[in-house]
Amino acid sequence: MASKAYLHELKAAVIGTGFIGPIHVEALRRIGVPVVGILDATVEQSEMAATQLGIPRVYKDLNELLDDDEIDSVHIATPNRFHFEHASACLKAGKHTLCEKPLAMNSDESAKLVALAESAGVCAGVNYNLRYYPLCVESADRVRKGRVGALHHVSGGYVQDWLFKETDFNWRVLASEGGELRAVADIGTHWLDLIQFITGQEIVSVCADLHTVFPTRQRPIGATETFSGKQITPDNTESVAIDTEDAGNVMLRFENGARGVMTVSQVTAGRKNCLRFELAGSKQALAFNSESPNELWIGHRDEPNEVLIRDPALMSTPASNVTSYPGGHNEGFPDAFKQIFLDFYGQILLGEDAGEATFPSFADGHREIVLCEAILESHRKQAWVSLS
Amino acid sequence: MASKAYLHELKAAVIGTGFIGPIHVEALRRIGVPVVGILDATVEQSEMAATQLGIPRVYKDLNELLDDDEIDSVHIATPNRFHFEHASACLKAGKHTLCEKPLAMNSDESAKLVALAESAGVCAGVNYNLRYYPLCVESADRVRKGRVGALHHVSGGYVQDWLFKETDFNWRVLASEGGELRAVADIGTHWLDLIQFITGQEIVSVCADLHTVFPTRQRPIGATETFSGKQITPDNTESVAIDTEDAGNVMLRFENGARGVMTVSQVTAGRKNCLRFELAGSKQALAFNSESPNELWIGHRDEPNEVLIRDPALMSTPASNVTSYPGGHNEGFPDAFKQIFLDFYGQILLGEDAGEATFPSFADGHREIVLCEAILESHRKQAWVSLS
Amino acid sequence: MASKAYLHELKAAVIGTGFIGPIHVEALRRIGVPVVGILDATVEQSEMAATQLGIPRVYKDLNELLDDDEIDSVHIATPNRFHFEHASACLKAGKHTLCEKPLAMNSDESAKLVALAESAGVCAGVNYNLRYYPLCVESADRVRKGRVGALHHVSGGYVQDWLFKETDFNWRVLASEGGELRAVADIGTHWLDLIQFITGQEIVSVCADLHTVFPTRQRPIGATETFSGKQITPDNTESVAIDTEDAGNVMLRFENGARGVMTVSQVTAGRKNCLRFELAGSKQALAFNSESPNELWIGHRDEPNEVLIRDPALMSTPASNVTSYPGGHNEGFPDAFKQIFLDFYGQILLGEDAGEATFPSFADGHREIVLCEAILESHRKQAWVSLS
Amino acid sequence: MASKAYLHELKAAVIGTGFIGPIHVEALRRIGVPVVGILDATVEQSEMAATQLGIPRVYKDLNELLDDDEIDSVHIATPNRFHFEHASACLKAGKHTLCEKPLAMNSDESAKLVALAESAGVCAGVNYNLRYYPLCVESADRVRKGRVGALHHVSGGYVQDWLFKETDFNWRVLASEGGELRAVADIGTHWLDLIQFITGQEIVSVCADLHTVFPTRQRPIGATETFSGKQITPDNTESVAIDTEDAGNVMLRFENGARGVMTVSQVTAGRKNCLRFELAGSKQALAFNSESPNELWIGHRDEPNEVLIRDPALMSTPASNVTSYPGGHNEGFPDAFKQIFLDFYGQILLGEDAGEATFPSFADGHREIVLCEAILESHRKQAWVSLS
Repeated sequence: MASKAYLHELKAAVIGTGFIGPIHVEALRRIGVPVVGILDATVEQSEMAATQLGIPRVYKDLNELLDDDEIDSVHIATPNRFHFEHASACLKAGKHTLCEKPLAMNSDESAKLVALAESAGVCAGVNYNLRYYPLCVESADRVRKGRVGALHHVSGGYVQDWLFKETDFNWRVLASEGGELRAVADIGTHWLDLIQFITGQEIVSVCADLHTVFPTRQRPIGATETFSGKQITPDNTESVAIDTEDAGNVMLRFENGARGVMTVSQVTAGRKNCLRFELAGSKQALAFNSESPNELWIGHRDEPNEVLIRDPALMSTPASNVTSYPGGHNEGFPDAFKQIFLDFYGQILLGEDAGEATFPSFADGHREIVLCEAILESHRKQAWVSLS
Repeated sequence: MASKAYLHELKAAVIGTGFIGPIHVEALRRIGVPVVGILDATVEQSEMAATQLGIPRVYKDLNELLDDDEIDSVHIATPNRFHFEHASACLKAGKHTLCEKPLAMNSDESAKLVALAESAGVCAGVNYNLRYYPLCVESADRVRKGRVGALHHVSGGYVQDWLFKETDFNWRVLASEGGELRAVADIGTHWLDLIQFITGQEIVSVCADLHTVFPTRQRPIGATETFSGKQITPDNTESVAIDTEDAGNVMLRFENGARGVMTVSQVTAGRKNCLRFELAGSKQALAFNSESPNELWIGHRDEPNEVLIRDPALMSTPASNVTSYPGGHNEGFPDAFKQIFLDFYGQILLGEDAGEATFPSFADGHREIVLCEAILESHRKQAWVSLS
Repeated sequence: MASKAYLHELKAAVIGTGFIGPIHVEALRRIGVPVVGILDATVEQSEMAATQLGIPRVYKDLNELLDDDEIDSVHIATPNRFHFEHASACLKAGKHTLCEKPLAMNSDESAKLVALAESAGVCAGVNYNLRYYPLCVESADRVRKGRVGALHHVSGGYVQDWLFKETDFNWRVLASEGGELRAVADIGTHWLDLIQFITGQEIVSVCADLHTVFPTRQRPIGATETFSGKQITPDNTESVAIDTEDAGNVMLRFENGARGVMTVSQVTAGRKNCLRFELAGSKQALAFNSESPNELWIGHRDEPNEVLIRDPALMSTPASNVTSYPGGHNEGFPDAFKQIFLDFYGQILLGEDAGEATFPSFADGHREIVLCEAILESHRKQAWVSLS
Repeated sequence: MASKAYLHELKAAVIGTGFIGPIHVEALRRIGVPVVGILDATVEQSEMAATQLGIPRVYKDLNELLDDDEIDSVHIATPNRFHFEHASACLKAGKHTLCEKPLAMNSDESAKLVALAESAGVCAGVNYNLRYYPLCVESADRVRKGRVGALHHVSGGYVQDWLFKETDFNWRVLASEGGELRAVADIGTHWLDLIQFITGQEIVSVCADLHTVFPTRQRPIGATETFSGKQITPDNTESVAIDTEDAGNVMLRFENGARGVMTVSQVTAGRKNCLRFELAGSKQALAFNSESPNELWIGHRDEPNEVLIRDPALMSTPASNVTSYPGGHNEGFPDAFKQIFLDFYGQILLGEDAGEATFPSFADGHREIVLCEAILESHRKQAWVSLS
């Protein structure tokens, strides 16, 4: 591919048109990267999405997409079990690849993808978009600069209610589709990635206790999209045994000796999509809630606590760099997508001039899968498990 | 123009590239409407914006833009004093026109624009984007459906801190550039429009007391963009006398006898862009804060108060129709732009099939200017003024 | 009376046993001042209260109480229309007198009481207890020390819902019992006193618009206590015409030129007893909500906003002096009573050694009544009224 | 003792005059129970406290106190290591006994106290005052009545900052004075008691990971009172090795299979005294924060979340019974003391007529110590430990 100077000179394609695929399309357009191609499981689905979203090219399969020389980058928004296959193919075809998390179904696969990514000479990222909430970047910057002091403790978690009822169903509840871990892998992994990003500390051991609140769920006859179960009442359902966790707790130890604990739940009424952390350092504490992402609580012992509003005039440079609107003009979930894409595509444009990539890498995605495997092992053993 | 079925078949142009113009560009792209042309005060500015934003066509003047038959719609994001001229020209050229507020500099101008819009046979809207916060639509729906009961009282206002210091400067502080009212016209008018939209009640009389906290301000030698004063320290400034208001209170009476009061301020430290209302009805009360736009407080006398999260599964149909993301996936200021544009362009595509337009009309824009004139008159007289 | 060194050496009596009288008794006991006598409208009521509250002496009338030489101080917690008579008698009898607000029914009465208090040589206070929320004292201290800067603007008010329904009834709704102003006099006057205390600025003119939402109310056959209407459903009611206001707005001008606005309402569903202020100065802004009285919001333009917790280790000396519990051990409404009583009785014990009294004086109480009369006049004229 | 009908006919004594003893005195007085005697470690300390607090009788030792036949009840507010000795003596002397938590230093002691209490024929309670926050009682009532549904998960903890610095010191940090557990025993035990009270579910197994952030602390030459370290800077200090935990996490399993996790910390900057829980049931979720104890969050899946204000008109009967003030008139930490005392002394007055005691019993106090021992064992083994 010839060198390009502007975002609007790039061309992207998106695979997968469920909940998250259209969010990729929208964010790409916001930043001015044209989305020229789309691919879903069937040609019918692909064509329907292309029409709805206004995307010019519909591919009949992944090979056709990868053969399209005009495509610079591919966004993988397919179900988890396809990530390895799709990401491998994209990398081998020399496409810049941004993959939804989890990067793969197990650490063998993700290790292979890391190796592939290293040799592929393209940008390869995993969409841990929550890192791009400006006040999460601000938190990380405060740790880096020593403003938080030595990290003692982190608590929090990620809690939702979209699988609150036995009649709530989605492919993710089936181990065969989404993997043996569910709440931890779907949402816990966002928290674990975010906390390691912010603290700069690796998690070195885990002790987990997971809980399948509904041992059976009612599956609609016919498919259900993510998050849509809340609004649709299916006519007919069948009972399905569930072995993935609805909720759980994981105690953590970090490389510097700090302790942590994470709660995940998809069955807590009233919490819609609520990632929270409270991080205690030797100089100050930080607390964040993704349902109020424009505020960062900064705790002090000897002076009033602070509430920092997401305001480019008040934040550090790294945080200001990932926000677009003035203070008080709230940004939210779609804006985090926009910012991670700006980072990813900025790297594509600048290439080696950009320095080391700052977006979440395939190595980060692999680390998360190793961590999930340790969590599952710990739960099964009901004991602490160290990450080697 | 031939009938078009999809947003991506339309073509938009934007006039003005200051603070708000690029926000229009981004929101148009999000909804899939191509922005094909741009115009600013000088060709140099237009070309710079086109390059930065990736817009293909640069016009040398408004006539050239209006002569471009491919352009379906024009967004007017120029300084207030040009709105009348630009909107008139766009309407006369048969372009769908979305104008930033205020619609004009006085009610003579705005009345002419209303007449023009009625005869032009195109969509003509004023960008009162705050109506499109889903929980503001929810509030309006609750009033319409009688859930709030008879309206008794509304309080609140719009408070900011970007002109907090004598050294903060922007063209808006000069009556010659922005109009004789400033805080009321710039931000108060958003509140007044929103409250009338939500309550369905016209304001029939006003009693205002306005306050110019800084009788002089320091103007940088060289221009300053909106909201950028906070981050830039100019080398040289000159003292300029200011006669527009920094803050003020306005008491209100509504057509049904309800009372209200609005506070505006651009000099309240710590409030970045904070529109609040508290609406008391005979059945329930509602409270909203634009700095937490994903939450609506619903007050009850005989049962617990509620906090309704912006969740399409929990809101009324009209509110769900103006939101894109599930509950807990926060939306914010840019999303309100997206939704007003979806409404405006949906009307363009459907034409008469869409029924009566629901976006803020030129008549709404005119009503606001009449209201502002009454507020200014009331302040000068220090007495109540009725709107005829 | 002989000089006494300790609170437990003093003896207090309380007149009135409705909502507020028992609160006085409880707070007196907390601070160790024995409550030895009680008086209500009838001997039966007095005896019932004495038994319930465990108070040894029951007086048959005020004269008997005032003749009791052991009584050092009298707390007047009777209906408003008796305050003048009771306070006059107490002062003339040489008793330290703490009177509930309003001090009297009109400014003639209150002026006389001020004169009496000056000559009586005893402590005479009005129970503006809200001044004693530690974070209100902190706010006042910040203004005094110049930390807030020059005052620009104050907004807020006092909003409740205990008279939300047409069937809510209390003697206070009748002008003949409580005075011609109701919401302003009952709760607005707390706000007005508090704001003048905090800002150190007198209000010099007012412009009011009041609103009687329910022109008639249903009076139970038989009496109703304050705040108890919410829980009791009377068997029989009669319709009574109401001319006191349920709600209202008052615009204010302060002696330094600052502007303000106060909203009062007793008909806003969900706000139980909600006094709020937002005070904008040239250096910082302060915001307080009496429903969260352990937090003070401090707004900044160029650094993060702060939330100061009521913590003696973090507050100024004057604020720490009126709080008893460490940070995080919340104090509330009854604690403000405790603190105002500690101040009042500290002055009694120390006498002239205490320096000038810091509790709200009869002069403060008079000033409030003058202000209320100006508000009523302004409302009737629908015009600004200056306080001479 | 002869039967008594009124609180003011009882007579109480208090042992211990540190942080918590005077709080007992104040709360006893609020409810009208005379405090007639005081005892501290030395006669000098006792006399100083008696003078400051206005208490008539000073005992030279515990025997003298217990020999005082007029004393009905004793409050034990001494350091933890004396609780067993003091409570045993009080029970043997036939005094109603209210002991500060922890009930004893180990479960052998506390088991003996339970047996003693059963045979003593007096009221014997442990001061788990936090149960008496009205909204905690409301939470328990909602669980009992099935409104919360089946309990799935509880998270939260108790976090403070008063030992945030290496220079913060108090006798509690020494295992020899306060016991081998510190944060768990001092504050965690409040949370554990409260959660079991609310859920009605016993904890059946625990997995703990505790953390001594400061392996040494600086001890002032001379004693330091609880919570006073924040405000006093000692002249001279000596370094002392610390082996009690500053922070920790404990995973929990409840008898019904629900999972839980508790975080404790005394080193989290900005959290002054912050007990939080989030309780997920199959019908609704509840969340509470002791720093805002007048609000209970009630989470719903299919309707708006609620925020219940502590308002007797809105709460269940059990919750209304433990609150004194109307909604919006905030209560706080001292009010929870008042309410537990009202419950304890109500039982004393009514005797067997009162039915089964509802205040926290010595059996509850013993259960907490057993739980703490399991937590310590779990931490040392780094493994799950079951409670037999």
